[in-house]
Amino acid sequence: MALPLLLLLGAGGLRAAERSGGGGSSSSAMEELATEQEAEESHRQDSVSLLTFILLLTLTILTIWLFKHRRVRFLHETGLAMIYGLIVGVILRYGTPSSSGRDKPLSCSQEDRPFTTLLVNVSGKFFEYTLKGEISPGKIHNVEQNDMLRKVTFDPEVFFNILLPPIIFHAGYSLKKRHFFRNLGSILAYAFLGTAVSCFIIGNLMYGVVKLMKLVGQLSDKFYYTDCLLFGAIISATDPVTVLAIFNELHADVDLYALLFGESVLNDAVAIVLSSSIVAYQPTGENTHAFDAAAFFKSVGVFLGIFSGSFMMGAVTGVVTALVTKFTKLHCFPLLETALFFLMSWSTFLLAEACGFTGVVAVLFCGITQAHYTYNNLSVESRSRTKQLFEVLHFLAENFIFSYMGLALFTFQKHIFSPVFIIGAFIAIFLGRAAHIYPLSFLLNLGRRHKISWNFQHMMMFSGLRGAMAFALAIRDTATYAHQMMFSTTLLIVFFTVWIVGGGTTPMLSWLNIRVGVDPDQDPPPTNDNFQVLQGDGPDSERRNRTKQESAWLFRLWYSFDHNYLKPILTHSGPPLTTTLPSWCGLIARCLTSPQVYDNQEQLREEDSDFILNDSDLTVTYGDTTITANGSSGPHTATTSLDGRRTKSSSEEALERDLGAAEHEVASRGTRLVFPLDDNV
Amino acid sequence: MALPLLLLLGAGGLRAAERSGGGGSSSSAMEELATEQEAEESHRQDSVSLLTFILLLTLTILTIWLFKHRRVRFLHETGLAMIYGLIVGVILRYGTPSSSGRDKPLSCSQEDRPFTTLLVNVSGKFFEYTLKGEISPGKIHNVEQNDMLRKVTFDPEVFFNILLPPIIFHAGYSLKKRHFFRNLGSILAYAFLGTAVSCFIIGNLMYGVVKLMKLVGQLSDKFYYTDCLLFGAIISATDPVTVLAIFNELHADVDLYALLFGESVLNDAVAIVLSSSIVAYQPTGENTHAFDAAAFFKSVGVFLGIFSGSFMMGAVTGVVTALVTKFTKLHCFPLLETALFFLMSWSTFLLAEACGFTGVVAVLFCGITQAHYTYNNLSVESRSRTKQLFEVLHFLAENFIFSYMGLALFTFQKHIFSPVFIIGAFIAIFLGRAAHIYPLSFLLNLGRRHKISWNFQHMMMFSGLRGAMAFALAIRDTATYAHQMMFSTTLLIVFFTVWIVGGGTTPMLSWLNIRVGVDPDQDPPPTNDNFQVLQGDGPDSERRNRTKQESAWLFRLWYSFDHNYLKPILTHSGPPLTTTLPSWCGLIARCLTSPQVYDNQEQLREEDSDFILNDSDLTVTYGDTTITANGSSGPHTATTSLDGRRTKSSSEEALERDLGAAEHEVASRGTRLVFPLDDNV
Repeated sequence: MALPLLLLLGAGGLRAAERSGGGGSSSSAMEELATEQEAEESHRQDSVSLLTFILLLTLTILTIWLFKHRRVRFLHETGLAMIYGLIVGVILRYGTPSSSGRDKPLSCSQEDRPFTTLLVNVSGKFFEYTLKGEISPGKIHNVEQNDMLRKVTFDPEVFFNILLPPIIFHAGYSLKKRHFFRNLGSILAYAFLGTAVSCFIIGNLMYGVVKLMKLVGQLSDKFYYTDCLLFGAIISATDPVTVLAIFNELHADVDLYALLFGESVLNDAVAIVLSSSIVAYQPTGENTHAFDAAAFFKSVGVFLGIFSGSFMMGAVTGVVTALVTKFTKLHCFPLLETALFFLMSWSTFLLAEACGFTGVVAVLFCGITQAHYTYNNLSVESRSRTKQLFEVLHFLAENFIFSYMGLALFTFQKHIFSPVFIIGAFIAIFLGRAAHIYPLSFLLNLGRRHKISWNFQHMMMFSGLRGAMAFALAIRDTATYAHQMMFSTTLLIVFFTVWIVGGGTTPMLSWLNIRVGVDPDQDPPPTNDNFQVLQGDGPDSERRNRTKQESAWLFRLWYSFDHNYLKPILTHSGPPLTTTLPSWCGLIARCLTSPQVYDNQEQLREEDSDFILNDSDLTVTYGDTTITANGSSGPHTATTSLDGRRTKSSSEEALERDLGAAEHEVASRGTRLVFPLDDNV
Repeated sequence: MALPLLLLLGAGGLRAAERSGGGGSSSSAMEELATEQEAEESHRQDSVSLLTFILLLTLTILTIWLFKHRRVRFLHETGLAMIYGLIVGVILRYGTPSSSGRDKPLSCSQEDRPFTTLLVNVSGKFFEYTLKGEISPGKIHNVEQNDMLRKVTFDPEVFFNILLPPIIFHAGYSLKKRHFFRNLGSILAYAFLGTAVSCFIIGNLMYGVVKLMKLVGQLSDKFYYTDCLLFGAIISATDPVTVLAIFNELHADVDLYALLFGESVLNDAVAIVLSSSIVAYQPTGENTHAFDAAAFFKSVGVFLGIFSGSFMMGAVTGVVTALVTKFTKLHCFPLLETALFFLMSWSTFLLAEACGFTGVVAVLFCGITQAHYTYNNLSVESRSRTKQLFEVLHFLAENFIFSYMGLALFTFQKHIFSPVFIIGAFIAIFLGRAAHIYPLSFLLNLGRRHKISWNFQHMMMFSGLRGAMAFALAIRDTATYAHQMMFSTTLLIVFFTVWIVGGGTTPMLSWLNIRVGVDPDQDPPPTNDNFQVLQGDGPDSERRNRTKQESAWLFRLWYSFDHNYLKPILTHSGPPLTTTLPSWCGLIARCLTSPQVYDNQEQLREEDSDFILNDSDLTVTYGDTTITANGSSGPHTATTSLDGRRTKSSSEEALERDLGAAEHEVASRGTRLVFPLDDNV
């Protein structure tokens, strides 16, 4: 949390204040001019190193275009960005001369603690210095002095504070809501339970590996159990960007897509908070290796606190934006609207950071809230503007991170590659993923009507790629031996998964017989191969039905609340509050209900009936609804809800409609690739 | 140039590395934890101060909406941003407690020059410090220690490297090309000659004021002649953002708009380069006050070098982007296209900075080139995406700068307000503006067919507002007494002109009888009040006609070159190169001509003939064309140019068409305000 280069979009982080001139040799009389020239030289070098990255991204874009143009699918753009990064890293590492040594340490010592600002008297003139951080004594004479390498090394917090937020926000904002909410229970289970399981299994396995390394003398410094757990948390953040891109391109099964995407989005948040909690686990007293219940519960408390706090922050700013866009006529001025949307979403991040929560997690939930409520209040132009704005930011940030990863393999100065640790880590993540997907899927299948088939489970197992989030978490702290080894290993794991596993997605899809070319608005027929509809089979079926109904009941409870109260309050859609609130709230209800609601409602209901007509499968999924898939349900419910009665069916219907909303928008985004459907079918 | 916080969009500049904790008191044993906590505290404060700015912008947006909604026009959004900034500045200044003193200077002295990196031994641990800059000895115990004030103080280079580029790029990219090019000669004259005249007149007048201040004992430190000239250059950068917004809203006369907008865009570039040249004017030898011819010519050389270098950089990256977008099928993937466009435009800035030119100037010409060539190659979606992206960035950056200005009046620590200097400056800028507009307009009117009427001249005189550029130039260097006084004065001038002069635009327009409610695609009738068409009046008319024809000839030369060679090479439009290049270039011509050209040409020509039909006035402006405004010109020229002959009329026609292209686009932008036309007519 220490690094304050808070919001530099682009490259402020270029270890900014390091104005390294020509070394300590040219000490002439014209100090001032020399300093000025050094500073200018440094500014120029900053520009050059940023240009390097821009060149990298430009090359990546052009090659992506070529690949897409030729329908090459074995390498994703992120993999490509890494390759270019690697090449540039090699050039920088071996092609540029190593410059002269670092300035010698100042001999005089300060008082008992370091100042944050130093004033140093240099032959009568005062110069201001600022604290950068502590350097371990062993490293002082050991630091390499290649200026260019230093210039292309970013402050790790840049990733967390500048590059991740747009990526995560975009993930939340572009969530395919309908399929996400349909699979919400499973997604939450995978993201929370699954990540925790994976973290602990990987952590424990790695502790075994570390013990082994200590036995055979491969370990030269300390490596605690908490370090292993931290590694587990870091590496549990999956990022199947390659797989999802290919799914999107091939229009693979929408439910599988929703499961994978939802899991990866939420488990990033879980992994961040989990790693913070593990760092917070500091047993007191002498014996820091024993289990300390107090510290453990403190960690759990930290986890819950940070997670719920960040969630609240995100939800609250989303709700505020929704209210502002609802109750002003800002939609007449799309530019103002877009600017407000951008600022409010950004403020979520800052607000969460200012309150000590996690900005990235808050931004995720803000994105989901904005998509669910605010999006409906925006003007048509602002909808596409905001989507496109965040899409471009997301694209640039993601490719930047991946090309930086490639670069870091050669330019990072403190790599520690330990073959035993690396092999152990690969085995551990494989086992961790397996121990998370298969048992959880089994348990989930007990309650799901649409079972997650074996093919899907294998595909999910296979899609546990690691990416930007694992990298950002790992690079955040590379101060100790253990963390450096973890960072180097994470880097290799990301390379391997993105290139090898990512490249194998298309063959894997056809090998596992997962259907592609699915219209996202069309649901799979209930008798589909991949989902085996479970019909009552003996004594177990009643219990199962109860479980199913229970979760459906919880889900419906939330949905009727959302539909009857939140949507009408925050947006122009949904039933008028005057009909859903008790009569003694009449005044408030009238104030909060926008006049458009009455018009919108009838209109929407008509669109709605179409939707439900196509979507007979939904009534199968959420068993006990009373809607029948016939054309008359549209006008029928419109009248019942308008005359004030709250019928169950109308809220159910709205549920389906809401799940379906914004689907077309997402489906018609510019990133969608051209794909000849007959390639793989 | 010293500050390397290069490209932080947002707020990296928050004097970043200054982690000021609780002062030097709490020196306990747990140093490490304390440092960590301090860093976290600092990070939190950074977030809070950024949140302050976001809140300010959000408030501004909401109030703008209210103002636009109620059709309030006396206060522009930038003026509003300044007011909110002022209020927050007052609160921060007087509402927050002043914290404890700065850490005492380190007693030990270094060798003969300051190191860029310091390693300091604090009770056995090594800490790294980086050089921030020199502090004059008098200031050491004088610096105020309000943390919050320090936090909201940005690195001045943030303005130059992050906030100005999107503003300037947007100005270039959204140029209304047709009217801009029609008035190109006058605009160039105002921008180059006018700015130089204004700079020297203001500089000399201020030198008189400074002499006077010295006489009456108002001056307490040095103030050189070059400082006065620098002030002249800084304050010559006009920024009639308020006036132009109102013009846009009221659809005021398009030629006046073009003159004002073109002048303000180009004179920003001139003022930047001029101020760099003045800084570069350093007479050698002892007598630094005497005129030094060598230094003067060096300055002129610097001016020409930087300006042409920056121009080249901008044009070259624009051309490269155009070529890339032309010869790839990138337009199938709007996201990639937009990202590439963004990266290439950004790289202009970095490239210019890396080569020692001025990034902001390069970005301007890059914007113009992109609008002129690349824009034609983009897909429809990318056109609107890029426009909207830069529009949002421009909007946020501009309002941020203005709210920062309001804030700076109270939070900037080294204001020097000198009443004599301020009054002198106001008089000087008035006289400087007058001495630039009226004589130049007189000279220009000698050569113009469409005279610039007195009303227009008065309006231009009145519209010499100062804004973001003057502020950014002034805050760039506030190290000396003279520069601090200049900064404070500039701030007041910006406030005055934006609030008072900007607020008086609407009354002024009606008082000067300048017509509003003009359709931008419709030209004024030749017998319009404002433009007095000069008809042959005696012996002078022949000379005038020659002047006119000459400039028209130069203009036509460029245009036929652009139309016949550049447009076909860089875009999909224009006549095929196979027809315009000599036959021995046949192979190259065929390679460079895109197949679409042949189709586009006929299509465009048909659109074209409509345009020319409406636009009989253009044939009046550029005297000797052979086009007659009848419907048959379309098909006629299409055949002549397709069969390979280069007819003059076809290039003339294309000229008109090119000037008119992208006009609708600009006119239908989202910022256009709703305006009841009968308000002012």
